Amino acid sequence: MDRSDNLPFVVSSTHESPTEMPRYLMLAEALRAAMQDGRLPAGARLASVREAAKQRQVSLNTVLAAYRHLESRGLIEARPQSGYYVRAQLAAPPLPTATVPESEAQPADLVVLNQIAAVLAANQRQDHIDLSLACPKGGDFYPGAKLGKLVHELTRRKPELLTDYCLPPGPLLLRQEICRHAHSLGMELDPAQICLTNGCMEALQLALRAVTRPGDTVGLESPTYFNLLPLLDRLGLKAVEIPTHPETGLAVDAVELLLQEKRLQAIVAMPNVHNPLGCCMPLAAKQRLARLVNDYRVPLIEDALYAELQFDMPLAPAVKAFDRDGWVLVCASYTKTLAPGFRIGWIEAGRFSRDVADLKFCSSVAQPALLAEATGLFLQMGGYEQHLRRLRRLYAAQLDRLRGLLADHFPVGTRATAPQGGFLLWVELPEGCDSALLFRQALQHKISIMPGTLYSPSGRYNRHIRLSGCYPFSERHIKALLQLGELTNKQLG
Amino acid sequence: MDRSDNLPFVVSSTHESPTEMPRYLMLAEALRAAMQDGRLPAGARLASVREAAKQRQVSLNTVLAAYRHLESRGLIEARPQSGYYVRAQLAAPPLPTATVPESEAQPADLVVLNQIAAVLAANQRQDHIDLSLACPKGGDFYPGAKLGKLVHELTRRKPELLTDYCLPPGPLLLRQEICRHAHSLGMELDPAQICLTNGCMEALQLALRAVTRPGDTVGLESPTYFNLLPLLDRLGLKAVEIPTHPETGLAVDAVELLLQEKRLQAIVAMPNVHNPLGCCMPLAAKQRLARLVNDYRVPLIEDALYAELQFDMPLAPAVKAFDRDGWVLVCASYTKTLAPGFRIGWIEAGRFSRDVADLKFCSSVAQPALLAEATGLFLQMGGYEQHLRRLRRLYAAQLDRLRGLLADHFPVGTRATAPQGGFLLWVELPEGCDSALLFRQALQHKISIMPGTLYSPSGRYNRHIRLSGCYPFSERHIKALLQLGELTNKQLG
Repeated sequence: MDRSDNLPFVVSSTHESPTEMPRYLMLAEALRAAMQDGRLPAGARLASVREAAKQRQVSLNTVLAAYRHLESRGLIEARPQSGYYVRAQLAAPPLPTATVPESEAQPADLVVLNQIAAVLAANQRQDHIDLSLACPKGGDFYPGAKLGKLVHELTRRKPELLTDYCLPPGPLLLRQEICRHAHSLGMELDPAQICLTNGCMEALQLALRAVTRPGDTVGLESPTYFNLLPLLDRLGLKAVEIPTHPETGLAVDAVELLLQEKRLQAIVAMPNVHNPLGCCMPLAAKQRLARLVNDYRVPLIEDALYAELQFDMPLAPAVKAFDRDGWVLVCASYTKTLAPGFRIGWIEAGRFSRDVADLKFCSSVAQPALLAEATGLFLQMGGYEQHLRRLRRLYAAQLDRLRGLLADHFPVGTRATAPQGGFLLWVELPEGCDSALLFRQALQHKISIMPGTLYSPSGRYNRHIRLSGCYPFSERHIKALLQLGELTNKQLG
Repeated sequence: MDRSDNLPFVVSSTHESPTEMPRYLMLAEALRAAMQDGRLPAGARLASVREAAKQRQVSLNTVLAAYRHLESRGLIEARPQSGYYVRAQLAAPPLPTATVPESEAQPADLVVLNQIAAVLAANQRQDHIDLSLACPKGGDFYPGAKLGKLVHELTRRKPELLTDYCLPPGPLLLRQEICRHAHSLGMELDPAQICLTNGCMEALQLALRAVTRPGDTVGLESPTYFNLLPLLDRLGLKAVEIPTHPETGLAVDAVELLLQEKRLQAIVAMPNVHNPLGCCMPLAAKQRLARLVNDYRVPLIEDALYAELQFDMPLAPAVKAFDRDGWVLVCASYTKTLAPGFRIGWIEAGRFSRDVADLKFCSSVAQPALLAEATGLFLQMGGYEQHLRRLRRLYAAQLDRLRGLLADHFPVGTRATAPQGGFLLWVELPEGCDSALLFRQALQHKISIMPGTLYSPSGRYNRHIRLSGCYPFSERHIKALLQLGELTNKQLG
């Protein structure tokens, strides 16, 4: 009996494997074919495991293995309490063409700041739709009730957290918990070396000020986190763009060349869940990068802000995990992972730890103890990993939804990253599009996006935009995306 | 009937005024004489108004007027629910001898930072007595219960304050309340120009970064707030010490000379309740200073951290109140006045407002909205002025107690400031004392003080120490002060 008509996928035979291929792989291949020819479009729900096993007369394990195989390839994804869904498959942006680093450039301070100011101003309006910022408004995504309860308990149990000046180094509990959780990224850190900061941005700022002098040159990924550009500019630092692959991250060959030529006084990189690319560097590349910066004694500022939002478990380690002599300064925060409103960041600055602690003291002294203590308690209570697992699934689903909408409503030739974590999407628009123009057009429609030009000191990436999936998608978000697609199509005439 | 034996003061006659001097002034003069010859020592309680009126057979108003007269001269002080007390009268430090500014010096970064690190490390120990830091541990002094209630209400009413990223410029309510309360210091500010910061220290840091470039020279008061020295050093700035009078503050003549000679690119000053001197500049000097920096177009960074803790009402205005063209950047926080644990600071940067907002964004982005909103609510509710009135009385009493203990237990020749606000005392030890040595000796006895050498880039003031009265005095504090007196006496052999 052939029941393939009833099935969302077709395999040649459900009873007998015609080749030596394991049965689960056959099933997976058939599903992949169905996805490619459109019988299983992006967003479609697959049959439940039980249902599929019954229909195909295979074991539950065979179906599960097939689904897991497809999941590991990023082709489908599990959504909690709902089942497996086909993920949108957009082509990845092409490899960067530049293999030799650009000459130094002064970061384009004002351009970046003016556009950020426009986005921030737009966000003050109620009717504005923000598709740009990586700033979660996460009533549904973050454990607000639990955090609120902890804060309340603390104000009663330790009222001195309100009335006492919080001296550095800040609550020991939080610093201990930061170190305990850093194990999941392969890092062995010492609570005494953790400096609490006002979000990850202050950690990056202190790190840069600790390891550079005005006139120094800093290696940046291309594209890079936009806020580094005005920061470098204000610190009197020059930038070198280092090619960065949308799937494998920072080009370590290029780093080695620059180090050999003694052209860098520091490097800033996001080896795990890059902003804006969403990629993670392969393990061997991380190990090599750690070796290089230790051999050449050039500090690497590792931005691990999104590292815990990697979709795959176990988490790939940080470069800091392979730091030999303390040349890696690792920066992170709980802003994207746990409590967007708390601004609890931290840095472990390796051999620069004392320097960074001194700089923190004469730059902003200390962090509010109440929020630091509440964060420490949450981390200690053991619900953090569970929360992260849920958050990763939610963000993976959000990104998939975003990719699906792009595939359906944006011009042919639009490409997008397939992020390995986080909630950001880097989109390449077809030849002929102008993302700086699109940014201005979208603002007129009360929609904000990030134009790609903000992501490099040379202002390249004018066919790219960064979209953020950190807001629960409402009808208004979807309408805004369709409108954005329309504007893009219009640009192509 | 002469009842003077029963009285804590002696007047020539209680019934008839022998001269044309008003009766209340006669009473006041008699009291002053009793204080000078030791019959009324520092700390003694005066008879209650009712008691004194009955004993002296004068009207309640006469006694009240006499007490108020002595209070206005700083000779006695009212303590709530307790009565009037004699304030300790120590000689003020002599005028600074230098009238011409010193040549530029690179601030002594490491010396300062090492000593601060020693103080911070000592503060981690339970058995340590801190007489050094201006970091209130204020269970009795600050409205912890009320603040805790506001925080709790907010976590329930606006849970998004926990889970939403707090974008700049931050809660409007707080910025409005900051401007409303700035009226008490004569300032007309615009909420749109207020940038929230991580305490006053970040405000100072952003201000300095906004108005200077590495290599620039900054005019500092001498003595000055110690944490400015490592900050200037890290920013590659040079410092010029400007003579600062213990009673009238910054020497404006010297400022004018430096401006004429074009030797300054910026000035940092505390015109109201100076740290460490506790003095306020006279009104005319403030007006002249404002005129000068506007005429010469050199930014003045006004540190108004303690300005609301002036003991006398109405508050003397800020220099910012006389700013003509936006050359004054005013920095403050609620750390010393309302919520030491919150780290809610702010800056209104005049013509540099946009610059400072940009710098804040690429330096630490934003402040935690929950604590900012709670502070805004407290300020709106109207209990702030009442709290400040109580806090001023408490700190005035603390300082007086401190001065009394110094007078009784420190070597003859010890001088101290008579602060016009705040909780800091600047003490000059007799010739032959070494405050850097005293600092180390005190640390061995688990007591921390601030050595005077930290308060100038040239390391002068080695006969000075700064003591802090921001902790409610316990038996342990008093024992520590006696021990400090003993150590000082020993130094003199």
